Amino acid sequence: MPNGRSFETGNRTMILFAASGFSRSVKKHLRTRNAMNLSDLGEFGFIDRISGILNTADVRVVKGIGDDCAVVRLSDDRVQVITTDALVENVHFLTDRIGAEQLGHKCLAVNLSDIASMGAEPTFAVVTVASPANGDVDYLAGVFRGIRALADRFGVTIVGGDMTSSQSDLMISLTALGEARVDEIRYRSDAHPGDALLVAGVIGESGAGLATLLDDECAGRLRRETCDTLRSRHLTPEPLVREGCWLARYAGPAGEKVGAMLDVSDGIASDVRHICRESSTRCNTPVGVRINEAELPQTAALAEYLECVGGDSIRYLLQSGEDYALLFSAPASTTDDLMERFHAEFATPIARIGTFTDDERVVLYRRDGSESSLSGGHDHFRHA
Amino acid sequence: MPNGRSFETGNRTMILFAASGFSRSVKKHLRTRNAMNLSDLGEFGFIDRISGILNTADVRVVKGIGDDCAVVRLSDDRVQVITTDALVENVHFLTDRIGAEQLGHKCLAVNLSDIASMGAEPTFAVVTVASPANGDVDYLAGVFRGIRALADRFGVTIVGGDMTSSQSDLMISLTALGEARVDEIRYRSDAHPGDALLVAGVIGESGAGLATLLDDECAGRLRRETCDTLRSRHLTPEPLVREGCWLARYAGPAGEKVGAMLDVSDGIASDVRHICRESSTRCNTPVGVRINEAELPQTAALAEYLECVGGDSIRYLLQSGEDYALLFSAPASTTDDLMERFHAEFATPIARIGTFTDDERVVLYRRDGSESSLSGGHDHFRHA
Repeated sequence: MPNGRSFETGNRTMILFAASGFSRSVKKHLRTRNAMNLSDLGEFGFIDRISGILNTADVRVVKGIGDDCAVVRLSDDRVQVITTDALVENVHFLTDRIGAEQLGHKCLAVNLSDIASMGAEPTFAVVTVASPANGDVDYLAGVFRGIRALADRFGVTIVGGDMTSSQSDLMISLTALGEARVDEIRYRSDAHPGDALLVAGVIGESGAGLATLLDDECAGRLRRETCDTLRSRHLTPEPLVREGCWLARYAGPAGEKVGAMLDVSDGIASDVRHICRESSTRCNTPVGVRINEAELPQTAALAEYLECVGGDSIRYLLQSGEDYALLFSAPASTTDDLMERFHAEFATPIARIGTFTDDERVVLYRRDGSESSLSGGHDHFRHA
Repeated sequence: MPNGRSFETGNRTMILFAASGFSRSVKKHLRTRNAMNLSDLGEFGFIDRISGILNTADVRVVKGIGDDCAVVRLSDDRVQVITTDALVENVHFLTDRIGAEQLGHKCLAVNLSDIASMGAEPTFAVVTVASPANGDVDYLAGVFRGIRALADRFGVTIVGGDMTSSQSDLMISLTALGEARVDEIRYRSDAHPGDALLVAGVIGESGAGLATLLDDECAGRLRRETCDTLRSRHLTPEPLVREGCWLARYAGPAGEKVGAMLDVSDGIASDVRHICRESSTRCNTPVGVRINEAELPQTAALAEYLECVGGDSIRYLLQSGEDYALLFSAPASTTDDLMERFHAEFATPIARIGTFTDDERVVLYRRDGSESSLSGGHDHFRHA
């Protein structure tokens, strides 16, 4: 699909981003107010504008703008995936709340997560760092150590980069490459009505961890161990690289395959819309989803957080973002087999949380039997 | 050479950068003063520290950190080159002095220039833009139009990117990929004593163009046409992609090949040092260079600038940077043939400007017969 709707190999857009829990919270913490001139045009107007400018028909390109990674042909049966994602000080992170190694880890992790969501194996990365000239050399070196440590765990080599100066903020932009067989790649556009919606990985803890980082009083209400668990989830997310490759190669009893897949960066409520929209476009038929509240996996740490701090679980589970879990579709007939075999392979949690429908809406089916129609749009998920 | 000395696939480092004419001038223009904490460690200490952290032995990597691009193996005889280079507002550019399309052009051009200097053909690129949330949509769209226009000229497809927000400055980071046969790639490390030093492209005009952009009074002393020529050279540098590929594939009468090659981003005086240092390391013998002032190619526009505005020609020709010319070595025996055949192929100027020596120094041989030993070091080139 050469004409993707969304300019985001790194699955963030400026507007998506501005609507994410992380950004909102950091901005609130900093008490800054930015006029959103871009909002005059609106999210999809802006994305369409860039896509329209960049869109080309290039036979070497299997998938251009509009998925977690771009996919280009290496040979008859192999492809390369390419993704880029940047973290900016005072927008994505505060240097007094994240250690240098943690920041390095996270910068690479968010990119590896994109590669994982395509079902590809990461190979190389390059790093661009723009730092104020009075930047702390030790902190910067720590960032590189954090990148290196995570790279080593997944066989990624950092082959180069660019060091430059900025006026005020530290910015780290990373581009990662990966490889796969062309038939192993999973896109956002292969969900069908009747398919199950599944999530592999932990959801909700990252958002709660961010809250404890920005509010010491909130952190003080939790056991130290719980607080550390939640914060780690936010500061050093684990990219599900092996899980993504496994899922992309999975074949069920009757040869069933995983359909659409992406990684959750803006929250399930927002990100599942990409699957619905891209699948609708591809299949030329409405695709929606019904998420079942009772099936959403809530960890003990998040439960303790909700009990001690309060707040709506749905906000954390579906809306807070930065989970870097894998969200994917699979034929309903193969869900049990898939989950069983996944459990045998990985300690990573996996859950079926909903079903794709043919009515285009994203709906939350509540425990009390009520239904919220999550209409999304420019401001994304708004809980009814 | 897995243990490159310099962390710069985009051939800028933070410190190199701070020493470049562009950065110095923009900073002066903005009247900002940044404490250079990084200078406590020193340029090579800092670069060595990062290289030490990232250095690995990966059989897939033909060349890691330390050249204009990283080079990784695609197949037995083909390689991919990877480069990344960022431009930051108020450091590399001022939005009131560069048009949006020009900025887009330049962001891609500096990356394509790196690919050209390896002798590879560019293929794909991804773009990361971090913009304040109140960023002007029309300006941003113009940046993408500028990128697209240049990409089309060289068969490059922009396959994706990342849009995110920043607190204050606009930053554009671009990663470009290219391909070549493994034996066509040219590195920085293949100059030998006795080789000729050549430059393809225009030098000096970019630095003069920058001066006219930052000083209206200076611009007023020139004919409009001259001023436009100099400014274009600075704002929309032409990446010498075809020239780089041609040079990398050149074979002289006795099969002579181009040796070392790089693109001039920080000025010849600074950049030629990379060739000397890398070649010294590789050949385990001292490699220096003697640049002959009388052979430095001075354009009519630069001559007019020097006459009307004043200033030392050497400062512009060797020290001002952002030329994006190709600097390379070739056996002295083949220089005439190479230049003749290059002239037949391209309108781009080419000149022999010096000779590599076996004494490790970078020396300027003046018209008056005097010699300046350009000792370089942490603060780079200081004209003696």
